[in-house]
Amino acid sequence: MHQRSERLIMSSPMFSSAMNEVESAARRSREASFRLQGIELEKKNAALDAIIDALTDDRDRIVDANLKDLERAAKNGLAKPLLKRLRYDDQKLEESIESIRSLIDQPDPIGVVLKRTELDEGLTLEKVSCPIGVIGIIFESRPDALLQISTLCIKSGNAVLLKGGSEAELTNRVLADSINDAIVGVDRRFEDAVQLLSTREEVIKLLELDSLVDLVIPRGSNELVKSIKEATRIPVLGHADGICHVYVHEDADPEMAARVCFDSKCQYPAVCNAMETMLVHQAIATRFLPKMAEEFSKAGVELKGDEDTMKIIGAKPATEEDWTAEYNDLMLAIRIVSSLDQAIEHINSYGSHHTDAIVTQDEKSATKFMDEVDSSSVLWNCSTRFADGYRYGLGAEVGISTNKTHARGPVGLEGLVIYKYRLSGRGQIVAAYSGENARKFTHRQLS
Amino acid sequence: MHQRSERLIMSSPMFSSAMNEVESAARRSREASFRLQGIELEKKNAALDAIIDALTDDRDRIVDANLKDLERAAKNGLAKPLLKRLRYDDQKLEESIESIRSLIDQPDPIGVVLKRTELDEGLTLEKVSCPIGVIGIIFESRPDALLQISTLCIKSGNAVLLKGGSEAELTNRVLADSINDAIVGVDRRFEDAVQLLSTREEVIKLLELDSLVDLVIPRGSNELVKSIKEATRIPVLGHADGICHVYVHEDADPEMAARVCFDSKCQYPAVCNAMETMLVHQAIATRFLPKMAEEFSKAGVELKGDEDTMKIIGAKPATEEDWTAEYNDLMLAIRIVSSLDQAIEHINSYGSHHTDAIVTQDEKSATKFMDEVDSSSVLWNCSTRFADGYRYGLGAEVGISTNKTHARGPVGLEGLVIYKYRLSGRGQIVAAYSGENARKFTHRQLS
Repeated sequence: MHQRSERLIMSSPMFSSAMNEVESAARRSREASFRLQGIELEKKNAALDAIIDALTDDRDRIVDANLKDLERAAKNGLAKPLLKRLRYDDQKLEESIESIRSLIDQPDPIGVVLKRTELDEGLTLEKVSCPIGVIGIIFESRPDALLQISTLCIKSGNAVLLKGGSEAELTNRVLADSINDAIVGVDRRFEDAVQLLSTREEVIKLLELDSLVDLVIPRGSNELVKSIKEATRIPVLGHADGICHVYVHEDADPEMAARVCFDSKCQYPAVCNAMETMLVHQAIATRFLPKMAEEFSKAGVELKGDEDTMKIIGAKPATEEDWTAEYNDLMLAIRIVSSLDQAIEHINSYGSHHTDAIVTQDEKSATKFMDEVDSSSVLWNCSTRFADGYRYGLGAEVGISTNKTHARGPVGLEGLVIYKYRLSGRGQIVAAYSGENARKFTHRQLS
Repeated sequence: MHQRSERLIMSSPMFSSAMNEVESAARRSREASFRLQGIELEKKNAALDAIIDALTDDRDRIVDANLKDLERAAKNGLAKPLLKRLRYDDQKLEESIESIRSLIDQPDPIGVVLKRTELDEGLTLEKVSCPIGVIGIIFESRPDALLQISTLCIKSGNAVLLKGGSEAELTNRVLADSINDAIVGVDRRFEDAVQLLSTREEVIKLLELDSLVDLVIPRGSNELVKSIKEATRIPVLGHADGICHVYVHEDADPEMAARVCFDSKCQYPAVCNAMETMLVHQAIATRFLPKMAEEFSKAGVELKGDEDTMKIIGAKPATEEDWTAEYNDLMLAIRIVSSLDQAIEHINSYGSHHTDAIVTQDEKSATKFMDEVDSSSVLWNCSTRFADGYRYGLGAEVGISTNKTHARGPVGLEGLVIYKYRLSGRGQIVAAYSGENARKFTHRQLS
């Protein structure tokens, strides 16, 4: 039945043994995705319940495997923050289970009728949410990502091909086996729904399979995301850069502005939604900057500024590169602008369309900023750090997207969902709607 | 302000004079797209009104330019059906104006609040529809496509870069000039909102500009769509193949099945939603096929069949290639299957995930078919030919998409729209939500 994809693959220059294995895995994912299209909510939730049981039963095996991964990683000199991410202990396991419980509580994202239209008497069109199909996920270090993503895919009826970091190989393998035993035990249709790839070479091959994989989601460093975007024609959901701004407008409350800017920069500087450039209106700069700079200095933030900034506070000179830098660290570029328009232009030109904030007392200026700044999250009088799935109330997060199509900003389950049209009739034909005595469409929106 | 994109471009091996021009046009489109983000509905509708006036005023110049295009095309030996598509006369112009009028009547697709959540007291999140940004459109022959697409982009606040077929060069140029004079006359912010590229080389360059163009929509032959999908990393909205099926289930009313199959194949065989393969359950084959074959023969349809089919009716042998063929002509492949499951498997394996129908009296079988067939339109007891934007009641159509992300099936204005998150507060910071005395998010859905 599958000669078509086989033929496509065998005629490709990428054909090789690894390709053969990955293509065969991806083809099994595709078959699983067809079975999962119509799978009932009860079965999906039962599968998630079974995963919770399996994690509880396999707790010791999982933690043991993780200890071995940790040992080997430490021997190989993995950096401390990465070792911390790699750790998967009893507490992390509890958190994973808690997150699966909340996923069970969520309504079915599939089968939701988004629109219902009567085209004619007895001819009814429904636009209905459905799974995307086969999702490829490439993630680094954190073994909890494997659980989070697999369970999101199960709830949304997608088949998933996973590739974790090699340093977490043993943990990931035990987790994937637990998941699979659990879900296939609930329903044979879950076979091949969750598959784990093991080598980097397999990922490279996977990215070639645009006829078998519908969406790739990389979770990890900017470098990972960039390299994947470069290497595939499959749609990629993710963000490469987080160059976020706070703009302090001329009428801002200086105390509020300082609070928002400090939190945006310092609350967790290593993450994508931290502020990297602060823009300050020239009319407020001399009142605002000196105290702000003092607070930043106390927190150990190194400041770089344009010429006007350096006239007011001590700062190293900012170069053109600083306006596009994602420091992810205690470092900040500061620029003084002469107008709201200039602030917006700076953000749209140099930013990464991720998350940008304005501090102002003026609703009109705030609205203009939020209308014209072309970013996935635009904020008024609050910290850029709010831009994430948990804080936005989305529940589990697939990731943050700076894409301009499909899903944008913090993405929850809805990023794993698309729709199809279902048209039900009584034998109607199109010929009846043309020529003499042509029937007319009613196009009536139904509830 | 734009050193960043300049640097990106100049370091690219594609840098050349044509690149320079296209990149500069695309950059102006990007700037226009920022201005269009916040443009009011009244301005957009006024611009559409002004286009109607301009078309009326420039009628003679437009028709003259088209006559010259037609003359040259005829001299160059352009095929008759293509000449017909190229013609843009008074009647076509009236149809264009009518279509713009109905677009003016449509509600604003932008600024729609899709979801409103209270994160905490005085901290409100809105998910709001917004334009995608810069759309690249590549279309063949039909000059009316230029008008349809530009006006859809204006209504949705997107900037558009257009490239039409070279045979329609003069018509397209006059139309683009008319549009531009009209919309810039209404509001200077529309400057560069609609730009026309003129050479094929420019298109090739354009497809490289993934940092400046957000979405590419090819409208034309399969070959055009395929070649564009191959050549770019920009998301492409469209469909390459339309390999559509009708499956006649064992309990089908043979008369209804014959009516639906005939319409699906013969009502307009040259289009993407026409049936290319008919699947027939073995239990109904001997009752259904002979009469159906007779009707097809009368209409001049050449039949190819699998072995079982050839035992019942006269047909040429179908080869493996026939199951993936898009004939777009009076030709049909027929296969006898032993079950609903086999029909679904055939369609998912060989089809193009475009439009597929089942004829059955049994709701359960229909539901299984519509759940499990992974196509953008799944139909029950009606002709595949219904799958199009006009018949679905979407108004103007951007195209039909077989993508699995963003927009699927017949796509109207909603395919040119994405959303952004807008968060408004009173100076809230994330630090307040962690540690001792941490505030709790309310995550209350607002109306």
